[in-house]
Amino acid sequence: VSWIDVTYRIRSAPADASAVAQTIAVEQSVEVPLEVIHDAFVAEHIVGRVDGVRDRGDGSHDVRIRLATETTGFDVAQTLNMLFGNSSMHAHVEFVDAEFPTEFVAHFEGPRFGIEGIRSQLGVRGRALTCAALKPQGLPAERLAALCYTFAHAGVDVIKDDHGLADQRYAPFAERVPACQRAIERVWHETGHRAAYAPSLVGSPSTLAEQATIARDAGATMVLLAPALIGMPSFAELASEHIDVPILAHPGYGGAVRVAPAFLPGKWFRLLGADAVIFPGFGGRFAWDQRTCTAIADTARAPWGAVRPALPVPGGGMSVERVRELVAFYGTDSMLLIGGSLLGTPQRIDERAREFVTAVHAAASTTGPVSAATS
Amino acid sequence: VSWIDVTYRIRSAPADASAVAQTIAVEQSVEVPLEVIHDAFVAEHIVGRVDGVRDRGDGSHDVRIRLATETTGFDVAQTLNMLFGNSSMHAHVEFVDAEFPTEFVAHFEGPRFGIEGIRSQLGVRGRALTCAALKPQGLPAERLAALCYTFAHAGVDVIKDDHGLADQRYAPFAERVPACQRAIERVWHETGHRAAYAPSLVGSPSTLAEQATIARDAGATMVLLAPALIGMPSFAELASEHIDVPILAHPGYGGAVRVAPAFLPGKWFRLLGADAVIFPGFGGRFAWDQRTCTAIADTARAPWGAVRPALPVPGGGMSVERVRELVAFYGTDSMLLIGGSLLGTPQRIDERAREFVTAVHAAASTTGPVSAATS
Repeated sequence: VSWIDVTYRIRSAPADASAVAQTIAVEQSVEVPLEVIHDAFVAEHIVGRVDGVRDRGDGSHDVRIRLATETTGFDVAQTLNMLFGNSSMHAHVEFVDAEFPTEFVAHFEGPRFGIEGIRSQLGVRGRALTCAALKPQGLPAERLAALCYTFAHAGVDVIKDDHGLADQRYAPFAERVPACQRAIERVWHETGHRAAYAPSLVGSPSTLAEQATIARDAGATMVLLAPALIGMPSFAELASEHIDVPILAHPGYGGAVRVAPAFLPGKWFRLLGADAVIFPGFGGRFAWDQRTCTAIADTARAPWGAVRPALPVPGGGMSVERVRELVAFYGTDSMLLIGGSLLGTPQRIDERAREFVTAVHAAASTTGPVSAATS
Repeated sequence: VSWIDVTYRIRSAPADASAVAQTIAVEQSVEVPLEVIHDAFVAEHIVGRVDGVRDRGDGSHDVRIRLATETTGFDVAQTLNMLFGNSSMHAHVEFVDAEFPTEFVAHFEGPRFGIEGIRSQLGVRGRALTCAALKPQGLPAERLAALCYTFAHAGVDVIKDDHGLADQRYAPFAERVPACQRAIERVWHETGHRAAYAPSLVGSPSTLAEQATIARDAGATMVLLAPALIGMPSFAELASEHIDVPILAHPGYGGAVRVAPAFLPGKWFRLLGADAVIFPGFGGRFAWDQRTCTAIADTARAPWGAVRPALPVPGGGMSVERVRELVAFYGTDSMLLIGGSLLGTPQRIDERAREFVTAVHAAASTTGPVSAATS
């Protein structure tokens, strides 16, 4: 079996650290209590393992957990999922590092150019490189191109779009990028100095592919991408399939998401097209309080012009025993998600599931069709 | 002009709150000092505006900032960029909420089904819905399908893949999804109860499109997607163009990114294909310290099997005056990014840029071609 060694930093009392570490190992692998694991393959090859806990002496501990490489499917999104998908929602857990086995790394190409390729392209050796940014946004394409000319003419090596430049009305991507690249080439002909212009590509996957084509057709010799912003899986695919010049990664949105929960699933995911939004319900495995859960559910269902309401789905440690309470709290315009607790006893899964169903059906008659939480 | 009203929560002394708010308004719009704005259109239509600061009495303040709708280009990724792209990296700033103008909302479809469509599909009225999850990962497809049968047979309304189920060897997506859907349909024929199965789609944009096709061909009547995990722009495009059944949004990775900076740009972005990584250098507009910056730069350049080194690019408030110091710190295998400080005086941009270039060229000879920071 091949493992990824992951380090998390947790805040906990020393006496609790091992238990917290064990909880993370389970959360980031099978997401069910270990008692529920009856399959030898799963127990030996899939369940995460605590490899060590180190007291840092300041109320925090570094815990080292081994996660099975197989669980990633060697896919970018799924890897993020296994590394920090659920634990990201625990405020006391920080993701610190991961050490990938060779087998895993072999699935990724890494930088196609790297330092050497960039130096080679720019013809620069033995010194640091220079980079300037075209800004502020709001200027028309020709003004940005003029700025680009100025920077290139001054001998700057790389001139990048400010990451705020996108495809806005005042400087459309398809106008700005050829204009800036022409400025670079004019300087090249005039002075012999060939700077690289790195347009900022930002958008959905199909938009990014179109922008990559425009940039290539214009002759741009670098691009700027913000992986956390466009999505890391999208970034990875773009990098491997649509970009054939060096890529500058921008850290934008990399410090997120410290976003209020009511906004993220309740408003934003809904606006983007989620018909139902799962969130960690209070009293479960996550420390989200009732106020937060009410806010998410209310926001997901609130009238909002032509935007249809989305169904709130509390989950993350709900149990059959709490159905009545949960329906009373969230109202019937909700979907209860019960995961591991139905699996407690293999022989009783069907029975527990029926109890769940029955309890929810019964709760309807006590609370009626109108939401108790929102009416 | 149309504006998005954004609320941020900041930690600051009462006397400083207004200044912090003004800094955010600038950071999230033009990213240059206001003195640099000489264009009337930019000043009136693009620069963000502080709309109010409210002391919450606990050391935090809610600041309301208006951001120009035009700057989003009505694109998902660019909107995230404008809302929290750079400010996400300020530990004292939390993103709380955004109120979008009608003009903005009109560009998004929102849920295609919503509560009503889900109820209609499931034929369930007047009560809450039920949802169960197929887990743990590691089980073969037929075991998961058997579990699906059990849940459906028990009368559960929606049965979803655990979000850890992806396209792993032990239960490939193309096997698991038809098997689980067949279980649903068997129950339907046997009992008349038609549950919905929601397979979890996870991957890069092209993988997601393939999985959406497999799910549709199998007859799945819902899907599970984690927007923060697959990337919100990718999620939005998938939702609008590839999915014609109700979508369940999973919160996975939504609590991220509290990820150590040395990992995110230095190791992960590099592994995904970044040839150069920009990060907020110490002593600039961001509070990242020297130790963090050294870690990023060292990680980006460290030997790592066949993975080429990536070029570290400190930015975010660097200045020409600091070139010598920066090159000494990062070594010459780096690229210095200087943004707004070159634009201080419109008449001197060319001159400042040349000074920048000259300073970096000169720094080469004092520190030599070998990195001072890593040698």
